[in-house]
Amino acid sequence: MKLNKRSSQPLYAQLKDLLQERIESGFYGAGEQIPSEQVLCKELDLSRPTVRQAIAELVSEGYLEIIKGKGTFVAAEPSKTEIRGFSPFTFSLLAARQLEDFQNLTIERVQGDAEKDQIFELSEGAGHPGYWSIRWQMAGEDGTLAVCHSLVPIYMFPELAADLEAERRMIDITANKYAYLPQKASARLMVRTATRQETESLEMDRLSQLLIVQSKLKSRSGNCCEYVTSMMRSDAVILAMDAGRS
Amino acid sequence: MKLNKRSSQPLYAQLKDLLQERIESGFYGAGEQIPSEQVLCKELDLSRPTVRQAIAELVSEGYLEIIKGKGTFVAAEPSKTEIRGFSPFTFSLLAARQLEDFQNLTIERVQGDAEKDQIFELSEGAGHPGYWSIRWQMAGEDGTLAVCHSLVPIYMFPELAADLEAERRMIDITANKYAYLPQKASARLMVRTATRQETESLEMDRLSQLLIVQSKLKSRSGNCCEYVTSMMRSDAVILAMDAGRS
Repeated sequence: MKLNKRSSQPLYAQLKDLLQERIESGFYGAGEQIPSEQVLCKELDLSRPTVRQAIAELVSEGYLEIIKGKGTFVAAEPSKTEIRGFSPFTFSLLAARQLEDFQNLTIERVQGDAEKDQIFELSEGAGHPGYWSIRWQMAGEDGTLAVCHSLVPIYMFPELAADLEAERRMIDITANKYAYLPQKASARLMVRTATRQETESLEMDRLSQLLIVQSKLKSRSGNCCEYVTSMMRSDAVILAMDAGRS
Repeated sequence: MKLNKRSSQPLYAQLKDLLQERIESGFYGAGEQIPSEQVLCKELDLSRPTVRQAIAELVSEGYLEIIKGKGTFVAAEPSKTEIRGFSPFTFSLLAARQLEDFQNLTIERVQGDAEKDQIFELSEGAGHPGYWSIRWQMAGEDGTLAVCHSLVPIYMFPELAADLEAERRMIDITANKYAYLPQKASARLMVRTATRQETESLEMDRLSQLLIVQSKLKSRSGNCCEYVTSMMRSDAVILAMDAGRS
């Protein structure tokens, strides 16, 4: 088979399509080594940079993996972790029963600003003591699955930093805080390209797409008590959810 | 600024990082034209194929867009459509109230096989009349948002093809079918790279990641009555959901 050198589609793009087809059809199986650049050049009468570019794009898209000193291989399907019972409450700190899965948790005090105050419907400026900014990671078997970031109004949980540093249990932290605990939640779920920093903290080497859940949690009093964003490795996570209706 | 020619990281990858940084920092703003290949070659003392490869990867990842005869531009943020009240029932045909949003709907009869029969917990082989295989599209303002595929056991809805072809209303199609209508649903939500065929039917030109919802719907009788897969453009869709707890 030869590619069409007179096509308006660049040769590297044609080769990429061809290789992708061969991967999808299983002609090159998962984990299998594909022919070397030289062999592809000969087989298809192409120049080295053309072949290199097609392969580089397929590597960056996660179809192929280069193993140094060995060659280029069809990527194995990454193992995926299923997060069961997913709901808009899933990544909430305040709705958590225990903090064992909240790894590398850090908490710091941040000031209110127009954006945060709008989310929490608090009046702008110095009228309230600001927010707790809490960051943590969720780990799976093969490394970090998600990085999470939560905002909690300080006026609702003034002792939260001290409580977390003292490793108090959630059941104690939230005791007598009934009016401020999440009762309703709305979430937005979307996919976007990771920034370089996110790619690093999630140890993503191949796919660079994040599955993002942004949840706004409201307490019994109707006030927003937490705003949490979870940025998940889209190549490693499946969200599983159940629902019923009467 | 010069790149490090002695680094183990290829020059095109260094350039890619640099350009990505300039885009993320807003140094090159959304919709703005970036310098031509020639100018980048000169500025950074690089060869043309190096610059071309970095740009090609950023184009394929959706950071940049090439407009023929004009140049290379920072991609504008695509407008996203919010699907509200998302739940595991959202993409079900049987749970739909009306079929107005089910565009280009086709229905055909398919035989049972081991995989389908396992999903529906039906005994393998010729013991039942097979499944309706129904395909449709969901359109947004800027084109197709999702392609959907549903399987429904023929024994539950023997007249479904005739009913849909006659454009009967769902309320009539499902009348007296109470025992077979979805009452519980479980869904799996994941992200994967689109195949070439999916990229074409979704008219995706840039990002090639799909946001996928796979829902298994069970009727009051406990039997699986529908298995629906929705493949959404991850660059165009936001799923919004609400939840409460007592």
